[in-house]
Amino acid sequence: MASTLDAVLDRIDADLDNSLGRLFDFLRIPSISTDPAYAPHCRKAAEFVAKELAGLGFDAAIRPTAGHPVVVGKGGGGAGPRVLFYGHYDVQPVDPLDLWETPPFEPRMATLPDGRKCIVARGACDDKGQVMTFVEACRAFKAVTGKLPLPITMMIEGEEECGSAHLPDFVKANAAELRQDLALVCDTSMWDPQTPMVTTSLRGLVYEEVRLTCADRDLHSGLFGGGAQNPLRVLAKVLAAMHDDNGRVTIPGFYDGVRELPPDIKADLAGLDLTPENFLGPVGLKVPAGEKDRLLIEQIATRPTAEINGIIGGYTGEGAKTVIPGKAMAKVSFRLVDDQDPEKIRAAFQAFVRARLPADCKVEFANYGAAPAFALAYDNPALVKARAALAAEWGRKAIAVGEGGSIPIVGDFKRLLGMDTIMVGFALDDDRVHSPNEKFDLTSFHKGTRSWARILAAMAA
Amino acid sequence: MASTLDAVLDRIDADLDNSLGRLFDFLRIPSISTDPAYAPHCRKAAEFVAKELAGLGFDAAIRPTAGHPVVVGKGGGGAGPRVLFYGHYDVQPVDPLDLWETPPFEPRMATLPDGRKCIVARGACDDKGQVMTFVEACRAFKAVTGKLPLPITMMIEGEEECGSAHLPDFVKANAAELRQDLALVCDTSMWDPQTPMVTTSLRGLVYEEVRLTCADRDLHSGLFGGGAQNPLRVLAKVLAAMHDDNGRVTIPGFYDGVRELPPDIKADLAGLDLTPENFLGPVGLKVPAGEKDRLLIEQIATRPTAEINGIIGGYTGEGAKTVIPGKAMAKVSFRLVDDQDPEKIRAAFQAFVRARLPADCKVEFANYGAAPAFALAYDNPALVKARAALAAEWGRKAIAVGEGGSIPIVGDFKRLLGMDTIMVGFALDDDRVHSPNEKFDLTSFHKGTRSWARILAAMAA
Repeated sequence: MASTLDAVLDRIDADLDNSLGRLFDFLRIPSISTDPAYAPHCRKAAEFVAKELAGLGFDAAIRPTAGHPVVVGKGGGGAGPRVLFYGHYDVQPVDPLDLWETPPFEPRMATLPDGRKCIVARGACDDKGQVMTFVEACRAFKAVTGKLPLPITMMIEGEEECGSAHLPDFVKANAAELRQDLALVCDTSMWDPQTPMVTTSLRGLVYEEVRLTCADRDLHSGLFGGGAQNPLRVLAKVLAAMHDDNGRVTIPGFYDGVRELPPDIKADLAGLDLTPENFLGPVGLKVPAGEKDRLLIEQIATRPTAEINGIIGGYTGEGAKTVIPGKAMAKVSFRLVDDQDPEKIRAAFQAFVRARLPADCKVEFANYGAAPAFALAYDNPALVKARAALAAEWGRKAIAVGEGGSIPIVGDFKRLLGMDTIMVGFALDDDRVHSPNEKFDLTSFHKGTRSWARILAAMAA
Repeated sequence: MASTLDAVLDRIDADLDNSLGRLFDFLRIPSISTDPAYAPHCRKAAEFVAKELAGLGFDAAIRPTAGHPVVVGKGGGGAGPRVLFYGHYDVQPVDPLDLWETPPFEPRMATLPDGRKCIVARGACDDKGQVMTFVEACRAFKAVTGKLPLPITMMIEGEEECGSAHLPDFVKANAAELRQDLALVCDTSMWDPQTPMVTTSLRGLVYEEVRLTCADRDLHSGLFGGGAQNPLRVLAKVLAAMHDDNGRVTIPGFYDGVRELPPDIKADLAGLDLTPENFLGPVGLKVPAGEKDRLLIEQIATRPTAEINGIIGGYTGEGAKTVIPGKAMAKVSFRLVDDQDPEKIRAAFQAFVRARLPADCKVEFANYGAAPAFALAYDNPALVKARAALAAEWGRKAIAVGEGGSIPIVGDFKRLLGMDTIMVGFALDDDRVHSPNEKFDLTSFHKGTRSWARILAAMAA
């Protein structure tokens, strides 16, 4: 396969200008999904994708949903593994328009002060440029070998930037067709411009509202102060008890299902240049606030958290009011990792709160959702191959690292289709995703395409 | 003096119907101070008071302020002590009017289901009825002895129900005239219909806003959760630390200047029928929430408190938002007793907060006021005489008890004039003060008048 791969890579290099031309055509379509006025353009972007896929021999179709359509293409063959590639053709709105140096849907090449060349346009990175790295890798295989290297199903949606509201139902309704051996997603980033990365885990979430009631009305603190229970005081006590002095969550059973990182992975993470200065500094902070015995990268990516997202109670206007409120409310969420069970965490939290309620204090909870974490085993064979392929392309070990937030479709793939996802992406921190003057480095586009060629070749081997 | 007092008391009994007639005339004036439309009626009420006082030999005048006028009358003579009597001629608004069984400014006698006779009208108790108990006691002295028993200065204001905004300046501007040996106020209540009471202390207040800032913006809890300091978590920790498990405030030095009750006073309080059932029950509570080793009456009246009056931070709308806020705010107030120094308490609280701030958390404070507590020494000679006089009239020991809230004028008398205040009142819990169908028991009016006669006689003795 090595000589075939070399030919494919050569083909990618030789075809780069044409690849850019196709990407620019894609970028010229203002497929802003959240604004109904742009629905025809979203349709046009779907048609563009379907046509590109058809040109590569995919059996491609524009499939309706209650919102913007999903493009599904089926192509390739052979022993497998069978992969489902997911991306999106829609883009974020462009306002404030006056901050764009050139019109957002007139893509152009630019050169950064440090000499890097980049593509500037809305969607250049998120996600049109990233989607096209995969499409162009497929095109090179097709050109060199006459066929795709694997059975590939493409699913390119048009509502990612407005919440993918209709995608879970679409996946459910088409589960038999979409269930493959593995999903590939190209919508994440590199560690830094030199270091490739596979996102190997996403944190889950449990979100809970706590509503405390003491007296059946607000009380005057002169008349009742000292005698009446104050729900804000109870809330402070309960919430303060959630963490010990080392930043560890104290809810019984909270860490059940949390795994330690393999030593080699932890050593990789320790070797990264994620420092408080460069991560927390830009938002005005200096000192990691999580578990004291953990790396900052663990705190934000691979360790679970308990956060107070909001509190309200009593008088919060200007000046003073001497009230003892009857009610107080807090919103609390937990980021979950590994095998933590969202419903067990929810129950444990509720029990934790109830155990701390004094007399005269009642609690109600409201459930605002739960999702388990996604975590790829570090020895997953496809992951091992992808990391090796990325290392070969970039000349650097590919970091396997967790992401602190969630990407809902990856959870859906696992939950609805029982399918793991390999997340590889080539975005950089300075790509201004969702902001004016969004860009995608030419190197990300070019070597990203070469990276997918190597990954597909490795998986097919 | 005993025979004179007996004659005065007899005169009060004989003149009761006439006394009621005069009170009714006063009650017919709709002197609602907060509504500018009623300003002429407030003026009329002031004129009524001035005329009554003049009729008793007071040198009475209606003195202007930037708001409603103050009636000042100077009368009596002799050895003293010289007293300043304070009350107010204004009343609360009457809405909702449709809940009144009869028009609020058409006073009438009514009989309660348990047989008690009462006067029904706006202001019957607060404060026209109470003011007239003192005036009628003076009248009886005048009728029997031809003169007032003491040097008495009357100060009857017209803005008590809308905040007494102009009274402190009036007191300051007329300090030399108003500074007497002692102030008397008739605007408080009895312990119960059988038990007279002197209000011997009022709690002071320190009110402080705490504003915490961590990151310089709101953060996404997926990206930053675990790594970034959360000001709501800091706030919960700080506020939870303010009380120990026994409900005692933990701020260093907080209890400096707090005195223990004399054993006899504490025994009196312990013997009262203030129970969690009858005090907390009506607002849906059952268990006293203050210092565990203190009587409920101490918790609400004679012990200092720390209360959280309000908290806000993060997302508090409907549903879920995974935010780590940059800021959080709490309003905290302290009820003070005895010699607690408001500014020392404020400084101690600020130090307490600062000592608990982790890295990356800044605090700002806003000062929303401070007032020291007022506390009469339990062996104050005038208090001892007043209690004895009340006991003689009601046939029951007169309770000396603190009030949990504040009465600003009493603080002003102490602060501006260096003068203590004896607060004696005859209101009952069921008087519907500030509510429709306000009433004043005939017994309160009649025996209240007799009580003042006894107190004045005792003081003059």
